[in-house]
Amino acid sequence: MKAQIITIGDEILIGQIVDTNSTFISKELIRIGIEVSKIVSIGDSKNQILLSLKEAQDNYDIVILTGGLGPTNDDITKDAFCDFFNDELVHNPEILIHIEKLFEKFVDNPINELNRAQAFLPSKAKLIPNLYGTAAGMSIKEKNTLFISLPGVPYEMKSMMTDFIIPQIKTEYKCPVIINKTLITYGKGESYIAKKLKNFESNIPLNFKLAYLPNLGRVRLRLSAKGDNKSVLEEKMDELIFKLYKILGKIIIGYETLNPIESEIGKKLIHFNQTLGISESLTGGLLSSRFTTFSGASKYFKGSVVAYDTSIKENILGIQRDTIKKYSVVSSQVANEMAIKTKKILGCDYSISTTGNAGPNKGDSNELIGKIFISIATPKDVKSFEFNFGKNREKNIKKTVNKALELLFSELLTRD
Amino acid sequence: MKAQIITIGDEILIGQIVDTNSTFISKELIRIGIEVSKIVSIGDSKNQILLSLKEAQDNYDIVILTGGLGPTNDDITKDAFCDFFNDELVHNPEILIHIEKLFEKFVDNPINELNRAQAFLPSKAKLIPNLYGTAAGMSIKEKNTLFISLPGVPYEMKSMMTDFIIPQIKTEYKCPVIINKTLITYGKGESYIAKKLKNFESNIPLNFKLAYLPNLGRVRLRLSAKGDNKSVLEEKMDELIFKLYKILGKIIIGYETLNPIESEIGKKLIHFNQTLGISESLTGGLLSSRFTTFSGASKYFKGSVVAYDTSIKENILGIQRDTIKKYSVVSSQVANEMAIKTKKILGCDYSISTTGNAGPNKGDSNELIGKIFISIATPKDVKSFEFNFGKNREKNIKKTVNKALELLFSELLTRD
Repeated sequence: MKAQIITIGDEILIGQIVDTNSTFISKELIRIGIEVSKIVSIGDSKNQILLSLKEAQDNYDIVILTGGLGPTNDDITKDAFCDFFNDELVHNPEILIHIEKLFEKFVDNPINELNRAQAFLPSKAKLIPNLYGTAAGMSIKEKNTLFISLPGVPYEMKSMMTDFIIPQIKTEYKCPVIINKTLITYGKGESYIAKKLKNFESNIPLNFKLAYLPNLGRVRLRLSAKGDNKSVLEEKMDELIFKLYKILGKIIIGYETLNPIESEIGKKLIHFNQTLGISESLTGGLLSSRFTTFSGASKYFKGSVVAYDTSIKENILGIQRDTIKKYSVVSSQVANEMAIKTKKILGCDYSISTTGNAGPNKGDSNELIGKIFISIATPKDVKSFEFNFGKNREKNIKKTVNKALELLFSELLTRD
Repeated sequence: MKAQIITIGDEILIGQIVDTNSTFISKELIRIGIEVSKIVSIGDSKNQILLSLKEAQDNYDIVILTGGLGPTNDDITKDAFCDFFNDELVHNPEILIHIEKLFEKFVDNPINELNRAQAFLPSKAKLIPNLYGTAAGMSIKEKNTLFISLPGVPYEMKSMMTDFIIPQIKTEYKCPVIINKTLITYGKGESYIAKKLKNFESNIPLNFKLAYLPNLGRVRLRLSAKGDNKSVLEEKMDELIFKLYKILGKIIIGYETLNPIESEIGKKLIHFNQTLGISESLTGGLLSSRFTTFSGASKYFKGSVVAYDTSIKENILGIQRDTIKKYSVVSSQVANEMAIKTKKILGCDYSISTTGNAGPNKGDSNELIGKIFISIATPKDVKSFEFNFGKNREKNIKKTVNKALELLFSELLTRD
């Protein structure tokens, strides 16, 4: 089973938006055993769409397209479908009723002929309903390739994938089982790990694959496997993972959870009936937002203080001016005091604090750029951790956020 | 001049990472007049890389590849280059010296043969130095196509693009001028706008293109133009933009700035010598992080309170319990009080506050899911704005962040 994704829109090609649609679709497909072999982004050009449809038909079983279904002149996917499938547009009353309802509820201008034109689909196409927008999706199966066309607006596309496409594909296709497990290692480069794993790699079964994903101080090792029998695959996977643990030892700091680490942290905190608060300096709100993105965060997340300016550290968190003077604002002492005060003023059980110089310029401290402290306070104690991630601002902020999440998660794991 | 981007890595195809590399590269290229016609993501497979190189050579003048340059077995770009260009790897002492230096400075395990192997390049390739990592980049020009291969680690790739590739392309190629201007409209759908612009669109010059980008309550209208003479293009662009203003009137709320809106806000605040603070509820730190991502934020950004739990609104911000009881935590009264108190406790001149039910479940309020209030406090007054963005959590959070930025920016514009 070979699948391809085609995202359509000039805005992708000029870098005006990041193509997160294909990431979402890939993830959804791999869950049901379908690997995406290629992702292609093209412009709003009929010629480009036609060429891509041809390539897709020759090489793939399933093709998912996003974009180009709106009511305006630059939306040409339906037109290209008609050309490619030698088809014509026919009116679909079901879509029109839906569009009229949406207009009644949310739009304060009257429905016009461009909206009404959205109620047309190629005659060979099956309708895929779009509950959140006026652009209907469509699917056509021809010469053993299933073509699925969805709107480019992410939240519309997402619900259509989850509610309609995935269930449809699961019923219509016999998909293989694909499983993945990703180990996170810390502190050593990929060359060091690869050398240690030379023997392991040459003895890995043919249906297993090992990949190295280095980024921001960690190397993630992804083992993936494909087969027919899930339990057989999982048994072999466990065996290989056990071997990896034996070979790499303590540089493995854990699994990459299927869910993001912040939602795993949330689950643990809810399980322990404990709450979390944060005070962040260089990470400037990003660490907090990693938690609040998920629904249900309010069950354990109290809030945070983004103590960007030193005055906030003093006035809101109540860090002693003497501590700052004596040790500098970038120090384990200040990080620890931030974490302790956060617990107190926000009334939470666990807290994280971050302070450091993200660069490129020095802030309210003479400490080196890249010098960073993270503290984790638990109901029992507080620990600080020092890092130096180099001179790149983006890297410093993101690495600090990832590291803070890992540190808290490890802390919670020891509580089990 | 036709350009293509090829990003290599199984992690993209299984949705483990979002391909932000191609967004960055597209943006950098369009700045110097080069349009990317196609972006392709493929797996760590030599066969796929070879097929893509062939397609690229047949169709494009410039091809930029990222990924597959690491020291491990799944890194096969150099190998594929040797096959494709009928070439072989030769040792490059300059790279080895660089790798040795990096190891001395940052790595606590000894350099091994896999690292040393990274010091080899195809004999036809020109070295592109990687200041931040061990994976050197390379370029080969053959049959009028320039192939550039860069590592997949974003911050390494970015500095190589900015420092080496862009200057090189600018000297070697005569690029056309491409200019873009994006107007932001609010409150009307794209079909409404398209109907109003029917005449405008049919009279647009051939080297101009209009695109509609609907998302999260706004429709952005992007006018792009290509030509040889920048000032001629800009004059025509201004003329067309003036026409758009005349036709669409007050639904246009501004330009999309070339720089992100948050850095435009920063510039204004620094210019006025004023500071900003935030208190955020449903946006949970995301709004603050939009500012703190940029270096120089410390010049105007004091900090924020993420008042996620109602207790934080009371205890840290000092919102009256009575106000919350009387009006509910999702109300213009609470939003206004949050903004006023934020100014006071953080000691800043401007503040933004957000409160609302992001969904999917109701929080500490019986207000409808999707009901959201944003307040903007200035040195003179405070104003609240009410929105209802529907039931999708992701949409509610992101729309609130965008809206809050727009509201503050408009407020600052009136100060000029």
